[in-house]
Amino acid sequence: MENQPKHNEKENFQLERIALFSDAVFAIAITLLIIEIKVPEIHSQNVTDTDLGENLRHMIPKFVGFIVSFFVIGLYWLAHHRMFKYVILSNQKLLWNNLLFLLPIVIMPFSTAFFSEYYKNSLRLPLGIYTITICLAGLFSFRLWRVIGNPKNKLSSGLNSVILNYNSTRALVIPLVFIIAFLLSFFTKWSFIIPPLAPLATKLINAYFKNKHPEIMKTHYS
Amino acid sequence: MENQPKHNEKENFQLERIALFSDAVFAIAITLLIIEIKVPEIHSQNVTDTDLGENLRHMIPKFVGFIVSFFVIGLYWLAHHRMFKYVILSNQKLLWNNLLFLLPIVIMPFSTAFFSEYYKNSLRLPLGIYTITICLAGLFSFRLWRVIGNPKNKLSSGLNSVILNYNSTRALVIPLVFIIAFLLSFFTKWSFIIPPLAPLATKLINAYFKNKHPEIMKTHYS
Amino acid sequence: MENQPKHNEKENFQLERIALFSDAVFAIAITLLIIEIKVPEIHSQNVTDTDLGENLRHMIPKFVGFIVSFFVIGLYWLAHHRMFKYVILSNQKLLWNNLLFLLPIVIMPFSTAFFSEYYKNSLRLPLGIYTITICLAGLFSFRLWRVIGNPKNKLSSGLNSVILNYNSTRALVIPLVFIIAFLLSFFTKWSFIIPPLAPLATKLINAYFKNKHPEIMKTHYS
Amino acid sequence: MENQPKHNEKENFQLERIALFSDAVFAIAITLLIIEIKVPEIHSQNVTDTDLGENLRHMIPKFVGFIVSFFVIGLYWLAHHRMFKYVILSNQKLLWNNLLFLLPIVIMPFSTAFFSEYYKNSLRLPLGIYTITICLAGLFSFRLWRVIGNPKNKLSSGLNSVILNYNSTRALVIPLVFIIAFLLSFFTKWSFIIPPLAPLATKLINAYFKNKHPEIMKTHYS
Repeated sequence: MENQPKHNEKENFQLERIALFSDAVFAIAITLLIIEIKVPEIHSQNVTDTDLGENLRHMIPKFVGFIVSFFVIGLYWLAHHRMFKYVILSNQKLLWNNLLFLLPIVIMPFSTAFFSEYYKNSLRLPLGIYTITICLAGLFSFRLWRVIGNPKNKLSSGLNSVILNYNSTRALVIPLVFIIAFLLSFFTKWSFIIPPLAPLATKLINAYFKNKHPEIMKTHYS
Repeated sequence: MENQPKHNEKENFQLERIALFSDAVFAIAITLLIIEIKVPEIHSQNVTDTDLGENLRHMIPKFVGFIVSFFVIGLYWLAHHRMFKYVILSNQKLLWNNLLFLLPIVIMPFSTAFFSEYYKNSLRLPLGIYTITICLAGLFSFRLWRVIGNPKNKLSSGLNSVILNYNSTRALVIPLVFIIAFLLSFFTKWSFIIPPLAPLATKLINAYFKNKHPEIMKTHYS
Repeated sequence: MENQPKHNEKENFQLERIALFSDAVFAIAITLLIIEIKVPEIHSQNVTDTDLGENLRHMIPKFVGFIVSFFVIGLYWLAHHRMFKYVILSNQKLLWNNLLFLLPIVIMPFSTAFFSEYYKNSLRLPLGIYTITICLAGLFSFRLWRVIGNPKNKLSSGLNSVILNYNSTRALVIPLVFIIAFLLSFFTKWSFIIPPLAPLATKLINAYFKNKHPEIMKTHYS
Repeated sequence: MENQPKHNEKENFQLERIALFSDAVFAIAITLLIIEIKVPEIHSQNVTDTDLGENLRHMIPKFVGFIVSFFVIGLYWLAHHRMFKYVILSNQKLLWNNLLFLLPIVIMPFSTAFFSEYYKNSLRLPLGIYTITICLAGLFSFRLWRVIGNPKNKLSSGLNSVILNYNSTRALVIPLVFIIAFLLSFFTKWSFIIPPLAPLATKLINAYFKNKHPEIMKTHYS
């Protein structure tokens, strides 16, 4: 980080605020997921454990949607965290692209609830909306990596082209698996096994980059 | 920033807390926008994609309202971020004016939901309430700039009168375009094209100040 | 702050986290106030501005409750901000008393909604619950000042007994005006004019302390 | 902390972001508890204080659930705060285990609302779900302590095996008392007195460790 221009404390804090504002948005979106899962209302005098169990079983798609979205938002937060390790300066372009990245994150609780409510194998729209939201998050994440990593913008330090390519490729993994799952859902009801393969895809990208650029990737905080 | 009085770490953190508390309020308000968009409830055994599509189409005003308010709150956050770059000291006046600025931000999710729910060309009240909320945000933002920039208050460093005038003028752009849109809405149903012109108005202000004070504006973080 | 023991950066951050966690709770509580104000639902084909205006007029108690609670939470945040200026060390006692202080803050959105929903001059319970919540906030704030300011606890620096007494007295102003308003509400429907007198009461306390200890209060960040 | 490797400011901030993101999640979860307590709706022209009191009395389980969960989340935040005192480096393992720890915290508002809604002595499921949520929080907290404290991971400084064992044992106290309460609930309706005994159990663990390792525990914060 020798090239890093001298910052005074104020400028550092201006940078940190961008990350902390984003953190708050991520944290709220990830926590709001739960308020879309309403406690079942049973209009009966004598509610039994069996009634409650029955109701909870119907809510399984909601719990699954919650868990999936919890980890999707978590993954994008991790990416944002990894990203800002390199940022040493901000400008309007960074600020706007960051705001744009937060837009699909904020939409996630809605897409999740919509998907969870109407998830049936014969319905395309709920999965479609969910997939679009995730694609937007992936694309805006990709774009933010590119803005930060572009040497012309002088916004980053230590982010060489290998690490940049690695990370911006990784940003597209989640959208990709969801697009594949969405397309497969037209042909088979087993398409839901695709998204859990995301970590595998990430591992493959890791392996590819580590194989091609062992020196650079060794120093990269995974 | 030579005139800047020596701060110890504690005083710096006291300042940072004001910004971070405000960040949290902005982040929550921007994220709460989404919970005003409820998943459509369809009381039918066999929900089809067509039913869902139909329902989503009726929700278009809500999505539009959400997007507009997302960027309006985002813009005011950007202004707040730009503002606190100059703040080096806080007092009761700053704290109260900052709290006042946060009030319309907190109200935004309600105004947005109200506007989105009852948006029709023949109705004035929903757009009126929305416009008032935005005007309050603009006015309190303007006032906060003035409090911070007033040399007598000794709260800022590096904020000369040109930059102050530039920023406090900019604070009034969004209210202005919404007031014009509101007034035009009495005569034409095309008034909704006005608010998207806000960036253009900002560019004009930029150009004016850059033309008149090229030296000062050059060093100004856009 | 010469007596202040040497801190390493880690310990400083441990302290800051307490303040920032509290800030987040304050920020969420103050913003959640708005989601208790639901957009009016009108079940009519042709909603007019008159209908909406009629509905909004019925919601005036809700808006009033929102504004009052916004500033009450804001005031307690300001007190918390002022308080942590002096804190240089934390222990379990501080952490627990801080958590306790946050409890009534979290309850505020409920008390506000309950009060706003059932506010009528003949009903005591809604105002009573609201008053109790505010009293708890005042008492726990008072207690936290006392814990921080107690020289035996060695948690603060620069917080002499005058400033401590001044601030802990101030902590009781809001509870006091609400208790008086509550008691008066049994006799007159004009009791609601009492709470807006809180700033006046604070000014009186200010004047008293400034008169008695001009030297000490002069240096106190108001 | 002599062994602590030199950090630059950037790396420190990367660490702090993990804590602050977690803080935001804790803060939102603890505050969202209140929005699960809805203001009672009374469909009557002349609502009296007696009606309201009656309604509030029926809501007592909700208030109890709120208070219990407020302190449970508070306790886990305190543990997280204590934990990050020692963290000097982060890696993917830490980040993922931290995210995992936040999962049950996010679920708490749902479990609390479910438990509060259907709490009756004859029902096992609500208490069971609540107990499971708390067990997950305890286990993931335990695991995070172990990840951080494992010397091989080189993530912590100053966290010797005694302090690690003390804290990871403490992490299991709350799950344990809730499991016991849950099991006892099959035999007696008095099982609810068990959870409030958690502080006692913690004190016992404190005493045991202080007795066995007086030197080490003396320097331990809290």
